Amino acid sequence: MFLYGESREQMMHVAGMLPFTPAPDSSPDHLRELMNELRTGATAQSPWNLKLRTPDLLWNPLQSWVEEPNVDLEYHVRRSALPTPGDERELGILVSRLHGHHVDFHRPPWEMHLIEGLERGRFAWYLKIHHALVDGYTAMQVLINALSPDPDERDRPLFFSVPPKPRAIRPPTVAPEGGDPANPAGDPAAGARGINYPELLAAVREQYGASKTVVRALMNVVQSSRSGDHELVSPLEAPKCLLNARISKSRRFATQSLPIDRLRVLAKAANGTLNDVVLALSGGSLRTYLLEQNALPATSLIAMLPVAVRAKDDTGGGNALGAILATLATDIDDPAERLARIVTSTTRAKQQLQGMSKAAIMQYSALLTAPSMLQMIPSTAGHLRPTFNVVISNVPGPERALYFRGARLEAAYPMSIPVHGQALNITCNSYAGMVCFGFTGCRDSVPHLQRLAVYCGEALADLEHAVLGA
Amino acid sequence: MFLYGESREQMMHVAGMLPFTPAPDSSPDHLRELMNELRTGATAQSPWNLKLRTPDLLWNPLQSWVEEPNVDLEYHVRRSALPTPGDERELGILVSRLHGHHVDFHRPPWEMHLIEGLERGRFAWYLKIHHALVDGYTAMQVLINALSPDPDERDRPLFFSVPPKPRAIRPPTVAPEGGDPANPAGDPAAGARGINYPELLAAVREQYGASKTVVRALMNVVQSSRSGDHELVSPLEAPKCLLNARISKSRRFATQSLPIDRLRVLAKAANGTLNDVVLALSGGSLRTYLLEQNALPATSLIAMLPVAVRAKDDTGGGNALGAILATLATDIDDPAERLARIVTSTTRAKQQLQGMSKAAIMQYSALLTAPSMLQMIPSTAGHLRPTFNVVISNVPGPERALYFRGARLEAAYPMSIPVHGQALNITCNSYAGMVCFGFTGCRDSVPHLQRLAVYCGEALADLEHAVLGA
Repeated sequence: MFLYGESREQMMHVAGMLPFTPAPDSSPDHLRELMNELRTGATAQSPWNLKLRTPDLLWNPLQSWVEEPNVDLEYHVRRSALPTPGDERELGILVSRLHGHHVDFHRPPWEMHLIEGLERGRFAWYLKIHHALVDGYTAMQVLINALSPDPDERDRPLFFSVPPKPRAIRPPTVAPEGGDPANPAGDPAAGARGINYPELLAAVREQYGASKTVVRALMNVVQSSRSGDHELVSPLEAPKCLLNARISKSRRFATQSLPIDRLRVLAKAANGTLNDVVLALSGGSLRTYLLEQNALPATSLIAMLPVAVRAKDDTGGGNALGAILATLATDIDDPAERLARIVTSTTRAKQQLQGMSKAAIMQYSALLTAPSMLQMIPSTAGHLRPTFNVVISNVPGPERALYFRGARLEAAYPMSIPVHGQALNITCNSYAGMVCFGFTGCRDSVPHLQRLAVYCGEALADLEHAVLGA
Repeated sequence: MFLYGESREQMMHVAGMLPFTPAPDSSPDHLRELMNELRTGATAQSPWNLKLRTPDLLWNPLQSWVEEPNVDLEYHVRRSALPTPGDERELGILVSRLHGHHVDFHRPPWEMHLIEGLERGRFAWYLKIHHALVDGYTAMQVLINALSPDPDERDRPLFFSVPPKPRAIRPPTVAPEGGDPANPAGDPAAGARGINYPELLAAVREQYGASKTVVRALMNVVQSSRSGDHELVSPLEAPKCLLNARISKSRRFATQSLPIDRLRVLAKAANGTLNDVVLALSGGSLRTYLLEQNALPATSLIAMLPVAVRAKDDTGGGNALGAILATLATDIDDPAERLARIVTSTTRAKQQLQGMSKAAIMQYSALLTAPSMLQMIPSTAGHLRPTFNVVISNVPGPERALYFRGARLEAAYPMSIPVHGQALNITCNSYAGMVCFGFTGCRDSVPHLQRLAVYCGEALADLEHAVLGA
């Protein structure tokens, strides 16, 4: 699927932007020294040494991964620098530009950029991986494995030299259902992995047994929509919006990081989840942005959220991966009311899934979101009514601060994949007490994208004022 | 032609790498201030506001240029910075990387990169233009027009804001034939423009009248080859060589600048031209490089040179554009003997052309070089025997130093187009008393390309020692 989607404008790679504060005792040349390490015998472990068997024929049905015996690490690992003043804006411009270039399919499809010249002697990594090689969640796990909770550890190899651990590529174990409402069962894991379409579609093909339940569930969704029950969002509700345009090959990227504790307080007060607050902040930001662009649809924007729920037939610890549609309540001015509406919407959607078997959940999710795949075909994008307006994922990350040879990882911002018909993607990571938002969009279809990040921060203050009276 | 050739690996853009010494009184933020100018109303004049009518169908026979009313100058003009130490090597790495990215055909196909962080506070421009928009020679003229011979002029607009002058896109007038042997009639102009295949092929189609002369000339070439007369190089002589491999999408770039006076002294001593000395230095460098790679062919490498000669039927000042093949004498160890062999080879080849009409010259050149176009098709590259091994062009540039708002242009290095079957390109500019060599190659097919630049400098010393006994 991710190879099929690759085109001049659609690039199916994900990335992370990772700013670091250097160790107090670090050499000013530590990034150069890192490059010298590469030149003197660093190795690329699986999957970082895998390339496509037929790179000139991406859609080959016999496509597969083969080992590249001579990985040219000086190609994959690159040094860059920011022009003055080296502020967040310049960093955003550089990584936007890097994100707008294709990976080279004649090589293992990943790149690591060591970026120097950030303010106050700081540096950043930009790490790009094609989604066909590993999904964003696995990449995040591998990266976390390559960092250390110990600021005094100084001999950690670069991530691609770490031998693969089977543990690292399994989904994490899942908290019990109905647990901490600010960290609900499974949501983060699924959000992290993104929607795994091949898996979903395979399930649809292979497991027809679940069909009746699914058809009943879909009928529920559609009927609730027709009867004016807008709590359960159907694929027929999303309005036309500038976010659902064709895209160009250029990207813009903006970031925001917010204290996770402030989001948790709001989630608890609204009897919702952390995800619900993320949706409310996204909705508030999008409302302000679209109002300013004079392009706010009369009815609310609809978000698609990857979620994991425990299926009724699953007695193990595993979670089923699914997708739900939820309102962003962008038609509502009051932030507290918006959050309440979102909580109701996601609760109903998850209830719907929780009554199903694992196979049914996957099949249902595939059907719910499948029309959106049509949007990826250039000629239809922007013409069909969208199934949803924006994908919002929430990726769980480590709670403790992490270090690379004494340099402290300040934040972990995910960069995702805009496609034709979905010109904006919002993905969040939690890390060390923060929720890090990454807004990845098409440079041309989503003008002034960086304002979304600013408005997202303002939306938090507005929501606190409305919900807590702060 | 240049649109037809565009593919994932073959990118038909040319570029210039232009290092500057800043004005003594320049603000440390002068590049930022330049960007601010763009944001406050700079305009893009023709041809910098032209884009393709059907960018998704490059080969459209009805393809044409249309005006883009809203040129996004912040897209086209970009700031970059070098990582430490900001030396020539880091500059080479950055521009190699920039040269390996496609232009976006949904916009006017050019980019300007303002690169800071060079040693001693210096900066550089990297200017990329698709060959379908303007040829390298015209681009050079436009750029020169955008600079000033006056270091005190401080209000010159950026080149894309300068209204087009018809004068700038005509080929330069030509020195009389048989003039200064170190600056031979016409050679530079043709070298600058590169081989204009469409023009050549159109001439072939339309002007059959010249056929007899051409066939006779070709027969001459082939017969001289069969009879062991190796002074006149035929298309049957080029050996197989690593330079004639398939290419990847990544580039390497290396530069060398040499005092033009030293080359002129050698040209005079050998009764040859500046071009002959450029070939001798290229040949010397390639011999050392290929010996080191254990890949020197037993017979000499053959270069293709764009040249302009005065046709026998041309009574005006104009020159015909043609191509000749010349030996690089890489099978000869002695530098003086190598230069002598080259002088003989180019002299014979130009005599051959000078006896022809203008139409015949173009037709002859097209036939001579046409088999090489087959090499551009991926499946044949590396299998067919090459018609020639490397294209070497020599571009004339301004003799006086040029300035941009007080910043002195230190050198002007051309970056050209490797294609399948021609993994290396050598192009030279003369500028302000120097000959600036640009070696542009495929990162994978031409390993350690930067050594070619080093060996080119050493070849000059060797040649002086051999010819002048210095």
